[in-house]
Amino acid sequence: MTVTFAKDKRFDLVAIGRACIDLNATEYNRPMEETMTFSKYVGGSPANVAIGSSKLGLKTGFIGKLADDQHGRFIRSYMDGVGVDTSEMITDTEGHKTGLTFTEIKSPEECSILMYRTEVADLFLRPEEVSEAYIAEAKMLLVSGTALAQSPSREAVFQAVDYAKKNNVTIVFELDYRPYTWQSAEETSVYYKWAAEQANLVIGTRDEYDILENQENGDDEETAKALLAHRAELVVIKHGVDGSIAFEEDGTITRAKAYPSNVLKTFGAGDSYASAFLYALVNGKSTQEALQFGGASAAIVVSKHSSSEAMPTVGEIEDLLKQHEQRV
Amino acid sequence: MTVTFAKDKRFDLVAIGRACIDLNATEYNRPMEETMTFSKYVGGSPANVAIGSSKLGLKTGFIGKLADDQHGRFIRSYMDGVGVDTSEMITDTEGHKTGLTFTEIKSPEECSILMYRTEVADLFLRPEEVSEAYIAEAKMLLVSGTALAQSPSREAVFQAVDYAKKNNVTIVFELDYRPYTWQSAEETSVYYKWAAEQANLVIGTRDEYDILENQENGDDEETAKALLAHRAELVVIKHGVDGSIAFEEDGTITRAKAYPSNVLKTFGAGDSYASAFLYALVNGKSTQEALQFGGASAAIVVSKHSSSEAMPTVGEIEDLLKQHEQRV
Amino acid sequence: MTVTFAKDKRFDLVAIGRACIDLNATEYNRPMEETMTFSKYVGGSPANVAIGSSKLGLKTGFIGKLADDQHGRFIRSYMDGVGVDTSEMITDTEGHKTGLTFTEIKSPEECSILMYRTEVADLFLRPEEVSEAYIAEAKMLLVSGTALAQSPSREAVFQAVDYAKKNNVTIVFELDYRPYTWQSAEETSVYYKWAAEQANLVIGTRDEYDILENQENGDDEETAKALLAHRAELVVIKHGVDGSIAFEEDGTITRAKAYPSNVLKTFGAGDSYASAFLYALVNGKSTQEALQFGGASAAIVVSKHSSSEAMPTVGEIEDLLKQHEQRV
Amino acid sequence: MTVTFAKDKRFDLVAIGRACIDLNATEYNRPMEETMTFSKYVGGSPANVAIGSSKLGLKTGFIGKLADDQHGRFIRSYMDGVGVDTSEMITDTEGHKTGLTFTEIKSPEECSILMYRTEVADLFLRPEEVSEAYIAEAKMLLVSGTALAQSPSREAVFQAVDYAKKNNVTIVFELDYRPYTWQSAEETSVYYKWAAEQANLVIGTRDEYDILENQENGDDEETAKALLAHRAELVVIKHGVDGSIAFEEDGTITRAKAYPSNVLKTFGAGDSYASAFLYALVNGKSTQEALQFGGASAAIVVSKHSSSEAMPTVGEIEDLLKQHEQRV
Repeated sequence: MTVTFAKDKRFDLVAIGRACIDLNATEYNRPMEETMTFSKYVGGSPANVAIGSSKLGLKTGFIGKLADDQHGRFIRSYMDGVGVDTSEMITDTEGHKTGLTFTEIKSPEECSILMYRTEVADLFLRPEEVSEAYIAEAKMLLVSGTALAQSPSREAVFQAVDYAKKNNVTIVFELDYRPYTWQSAEETSVYYKWAAEQANLVIGTRDEYDILENQENGDDEETAKALLAHRAELVVIKHGVDGSIAFEEDGTITRAKAYPSNVLKTFGAGDSYASAFLYALVNGKSTQEALQFGGASAAIVVSKHSSSEAMPTVGEIEDLLKQHEQRV
Repeated sequence: MTVTFAKDKRFDLVAIGRACIDLNATEYNRPMEETMTFSKYVGGSPANVAIGSSKLGLKTGFIGKLADDQHGRFIRSYMDGVGVDTSEMITDTEGHKTGLTFTEIKSPEECSILMYRTEVADLFLRPEEVSEAYIAEAKMLLVSGTALAQSPSREAVFQAVDYAKKNNVTIVFELDYRPYTWQSAEETSVYYKWAAEQANLVIGTRDEYDILENQENGDDEETAKALLAHRAELVVIKHGVDGSIAFEEDGTITRAKAYPSNVLKTFGAGDSYASAFLYALVNGKSTQEALQFGGASAAIVVSKHSSSEAMPTVGEIEDLLKQHEQRV
Repeated sequence: MTVTFAKDKRFDLVAIGRACIDLNATEYNRPMEETMTFSKYVGGSPANVAIGSSKLGLKTGFIGKLADDQHGRFIRSYMDGVGVDTSEMITDTEGHKTGLTFTEIKSPEECSILMYRTEVADLFLRPEEVSEAYIAEAKMLLVSGTALAQSPSREAVFQAVDYAKKNNVTIVFELDYRPYTWQSAEETSVYYKWAAEQANLVIGTRDEYDILENQENGDDEETAKALLAHRAELVVIKHGVDGSIAFEEDGTITRAKAYPSNVLKTFGAGDSYASAFLYALVNGKSTQEALQFGGASAAIVVSKHSSSEAMPTVGEIEDLLKQHEQRV
Repeated sequence: MTVTFAKDKRFDLVAIGRACIDLNATEYNRPMEETMTFSKYVGGSPANVAIGSSKLGLKTGFIGKLADDQHGRFIRSYMDGVGVDTSEMITDTEGHKTGLTFTEIKSPEECSILMYRTEVADLFLRPEEVSEAYIAEAKMLLVSGTALAQSPSREAVFQAVDYAKKNNVTIVFELDYRPYTWQSAEETSVYYKWAAEQANLVIGTRDEYDILENQENGDDEETAKALLAHRAELVVIKHGVDGSIAFEEDGTITRAKAYPSNVLKTFGAGDSYASAFLYALVNGKSTQEALQFGGASAAIVVSKHSSSEAMPTVGEIEDLLKQHEQRV
């Protein structure tokens, strides 16, 4: 394993970025126009990863900004409840609202979302609201790409990354690309490149790496080579049902297949993948095992209704992995 | 009756302003933080009035702007379904979203809402998108105060009012004050005054008239006198459970009591009031009868879950009125 | 004379709107690219009219907002110096800058300007900063169209007009159209129409009335008829070298020729016209005489370098008028 | 010398950032309120450095965005005239104006400026408008701190720096701090730190380094140490009349005194310093000589009226240096 983590820290993982509300259609296999009821969950990629890894047993914390309203209070209370430390989730004082994601499940293959991201609270986290002492207590800092989409959240991430580097905290960059609030492909690429060049560990789908490189049909090996020339020690590129590939500094390339699943919807796959993958790494498992953990966790979540609530336990992941071993 | 209407028009009522989505807590008597499921309805004051009056049998149309997404399409389809003409509801092409209102019903006395109004589609209706020919076909134009909260929707209302005056269309101003998107009390007062001075018929609660006058504890008679000195022929001031008062140009003052109701929530009371009141007026009923129709309609809606779906029929209103006559 | 003025007021004229800086090329007959030196003057249509009418002997005051910087202080000091009351010129506290106009005099026929109007201080006057008592002390309130171009200055004008109507102050609307800061032709037309319908006296060029009507090649008689149907008592339409026409409520139409001049540049013609025209009216002269006063004043200013400094005295105007009488 | 430059390139120096208009008071020793005439010059730190180094004989180019108006055309024409390549100065197509700086010279010790920087054209340079091929042709890329103050100019600088690194172009960061358009001290510090960590050569005043570090009374040695730990090879910290200090990667520290001057105003000192300092370095002179060149050039410019026009020749600098040798 090339990615190393500091020992004896208060937190295994501290995530920075958005914690929002998902409103999931309670009826499936129909367009949202015909959906009449929605169930409320905590959502947002870094929040999901924090929740998922906390359920797996990691000590986690969150840096973000919450609306001063019923949705903001629900998010704080839910995350507290699943063991995520919320002491650094600042309450917004300027009337900004919570980001929303309505999900539509027409069929397992046709899922879409409708996002409310205009002037939402999480994008207003300011650099001076990020605590160096808090970051210094973490083994890793998880940065979500969406937090770079606008000022001042963008500068808060710059600040957090600076603190992480100063305090020897492993930086994980989850690309988490959402085509909202970004002004242009060039702007996106500028900040994605910046973040990927600071990170020790980069995780994303092939499509997301293409956004980072502002090109189409990029090549995995070239992508990995470019990032490993900077601070990256491990670059994970995901290819959906075709599995994932990890590239390491020493030249090692590791591949893993995706696990078959009774897919209900595709939402949450990436976040559950990241939770389990990071859980495995920080617990000293091999890259191969970590990729399998990630894949298994994703397979479980896509068969369930929510992204956050559905995050599996270690036992569930290990059961699924065992099942597949036996089949082989 | 002092308010008169043109005859032989295609529409009894054309409303201008917002048509949005209400997300109503399916569980009652609890804070929104603990509400886990929401039901979707069409909402927004002028949309509710159009829907309500269409259900009462009026020929209605709507001028507005809808998001080009699932919520926008749902609104159009729902309004079509209840008989509101949507041919002048423009589809937004700039990515704006549908306004949202989450409702919370802690108790019949403690209802609150959480509104998403930042850069929503309805506020982007432009003056050049308002059709003079369409307005000319209406007996009355219903203007909602919220449509004045921002440009260019504000100028679209100015334009619509100008067309209504040119074409002898009765202008109804429903104050419908929402403390969102307005910059200051002074700005609000400036545009509320402007609209009230153009209208033939003004309807609002005492609190809303105080907003118009930018003062506290205003006096009904002075309020009415000031507006009747302009174009107003009829000024209705509502006092909740204490009933409502109508002031007319010729000095007539008419009072009506509110009807007792098994109150579930207070939302939608104003819109159902306006629907039935305007239905009665346009059908030649007296001011007294119109006030009673309004009050009865409100009493029915506050006992039900939604604002738009719950709009009563003429039969339901007449039944309630009869019941109360017998009791007297 | 149909336009009447209250007697015994502290001010003959109070203007509301912008007071800015003109930077006039000291070299003539060349493009601005080759101009290396600029002279500083107070500028902005309503400021020029206030200065011009003060030099003619009217008691004048100004309602506006000035930048808290060297340019703002210069404007206040200059206007004080020529006798304009500046007690209601608010100093901006939010860092907005003074509007600027660079002028270019390629030839008497080819003059152009380069305006800095982005977030300038005068557009930030708020309705609550307008004093009813101050307006009540004026015989007339001069409203400049440019003050309607943006909020909150727009609402400040609505407020001022409301106060003027309540206190029996004659409202003069100088169209003063500048294609900056307006969002669209429709928006402009909406507010120009609104202001023209409130005014007792409307002054503008034919081109400006076309902006008001959002059409091309409008007809003077129709324009006047439409406005005289509202509050207007006198409508003046200017046609440059072809002179001007005044339409009055009682059907009187008065025409006046423009006076020949040794034209240096065309800037300032409209403001000097308005100053002298209003001076004449408020001093009880006939419409015919007032038009001549306006024309003579314009003829003097276009032969000089600045707009504000060059404003003539009554003596200069009367001399020019006498000269022309003798020639006839 | 530790800073090295590529050989055989088309340009010695390519600067990126703002090119604006200075309006310098033609009268001295008085407040701007009393200044009635202003002379026009090209201004803006990176433009001044490009002009100054071109006059010293360097081959220079400029990457920026110019307003499509008389001021924009003047800037292009002036820079062309002094030999700066302007082929990569894009003309704005969205109506943005040229930045302006009015200067006030109350006394040699009391100089102040009044800047117009709201939505000016230079801040709208976009990353996709920056040419990699052009930057690849330069020995050094000069980045001005002000270009980082707002998007999209900020991202254009990120892009330019990325191209410079890829093409082995020496990156010079001139701090050039102006407290306009920045949102907060933290935001400024974030981007100043980022740029300083990318640069091979950093130049600024002690005050500017304090801005970079978001602290007061920083220590030169610590500042230099922190930056030399990144890509910096040479860090120059200027102390006004107390001279300047250069810190190099190998631990060398070089000091130089400021030259006495008949000071008229302090504007332009930094830009003339940078021009001559970079001229010296790129011509293979020692750090000591380069500091002296910078100091001599600054001493000459502060005795003259403008910043750009007054940039000295090599002969003038050498004369001043000789004079002072003789005196020693």
